[in-house]
Amino acid sequence: MDSLDRLNARLLQFARDRDWEQFHSPKNLAMALAGEVGELIEHFQWLTEEQSAGLSPDKKVLVGEELADCLIYLIRISERLGIDLLAAAERKIASNERRYPVERVRGDARRAEEYDPPAQADH
Amino acid sequence: MDSLDRLNARLLQFARDRDWEQFHSPKNLAMALAGEVGELIEHFQWLTEEQSAGLSPDKKVLVGEELADCLIYLIRISERLGIDLLAAAERKIASNERRYPVERVRGDARRAEEYDPPAQADH
Amino acid sequence: MDSLDRLNARLLQFARDRDWEQFHSPKNLAMALAGEVGELIEHFQWLTEEQSAGLSPDKKVLVGEELADCLIYLIRISERLGIDLLAAAERKIASNERRYPVERVRGDARRAEEYDPPAQADH
Amino acid sequence: MDSLDRLNARLLQFARDRDWEQFHSPKNLAMALAGEVGELIEHFQWLTEEQSAGLSPDKKVLVGEELADCLIYLIRISERLGIDLLAAAERKIASNERRYPVERVRGDARRAEEYDPPAQADH
Repeated sequence: MDSLDRLNARLLQFARDRDWEQFHSPKNLAMALAGEVGELIEHFQWLTEEQSAGLSPDKKVLVGEELADCLIYLIRISERLGIDLLAAAERKIASNERRYPVERVRGDARRAEEYDPPAQADH
Repeated sequence: MDSLDRLNARLLQFARDRDWEQFHSPKNLAMALAGEVGELIEHFQWLTEEQSAGLSPDKKVLVGEELADCLIYLIRISERLGIDLLAAAERKIASNERRYPVERVRGDARRAEEYDPPAQADH
Repeated sequence: MDSLDRLNARLLQFARDRDWEQFHSPKNLAMALAGEVGELIEHFQWLTEEQSAGLSPDKKVLVGEELADCLIYLIRISERLGIDLLAAAERKIASNERRYPVERVRGDARRAEEYDPPAQADH
Repeated sequence: MDSLDRLNARLLQFARDRDWEQFHSPKNLAMALAGEVGELIEHFQWLTEEQSAGLSPDKKVLVGEELADCLIYLIRISERLGIDLLAAAERKIASNERRYPVERVRGDARRAEEYDPPAQADH
């Protein structure tokens, strides 16, 4: 069984056992995800980019916990909406591969709509 | 090969092919994740909880794309920090199972520190 | 002296006294703002809309502190970029008054681009 | 009349004229604020700190609009909760001046709880 499916099944059981599905509307779960991302970003806000890439082992554990929380809420939202998160990610990567052809964007981090004329912006 | 590992390998190749690793500091990727979560939350902000659980098929596609973007950045941050995202999620779920015993929290959505005396808060 | 100007002067002095301007790039301050908004949203994520409008006095103090932090970082970002926050807000409100004419949007919370044909979306 | 009071009165009228107060629960407004902060952060995510301090005039206008949106929602949340945003900001600044004495934190951006023993953390 795939890892995301396994996590999903375990999280669903966790919520049902606690009668917490009543709180797990997509709206609320999106808020919970935003809260976790806020906690994640607080670890990085006063660091330089270099420092952010060289966290101490202790910090790395804390950051890993925030990343885990984010993944947990992503999986829960997807489950509540009946969205196949893995398939959505694969579609999105394929789309990005088309939107950002290697020869065009190499070494340049602008978003697709900044390359394209506005009328074709799809972001 | 597991789904998250496969996505990770594909995303790493995507970044390398475009020479985008230079932009992908954990700091920047955490910001990009926050931006995507902002886009996600905009879909839900004026909806009731009930409406958020009953999106139209069109809206569901759009929301799926935002969820995909979030997963993509989560995987990228984890890769850059050398964090095993799947293992971190499994540890976090096990920790939540201990922090929120079924018999204690059933039907009650407070956070652990609101159950515990403040001195024992671990959140 | 206007309240926002007064807060701005005080916050600027605060940063200079501590030699913290070196950390206060717009990029970092935007992250700090996102972190505070994450803390704000955590207060509301499991509440119904009705509950969110009826906070206890204790909760209201905590929420007020998060709102204060958000305002502080908004003012700091504006100062660092040389943006007149008050003037920007007044322009934005005037623009919203034009984009959302009373007779057209009364009681309907869709965003402007959902009223307009996509080619004219300005959001 | 103070600027924040004036903005507040105008925004309240704007919402009432459109019968939008029904959508403006603190919960929903906190989400809307998070959405705007997400848009703000997207402007900075791939910039270096230096680049973020040297935006082009065009970019500065766009960033000013996001900052304005953030201020608008901050004011709206405060109004709905009966919180005096200005007083809350002044209290928070006074508190920060005590928590971060100049002689102790000069040039060092750690948060108060990283200076203090955990039992005294108030963040």
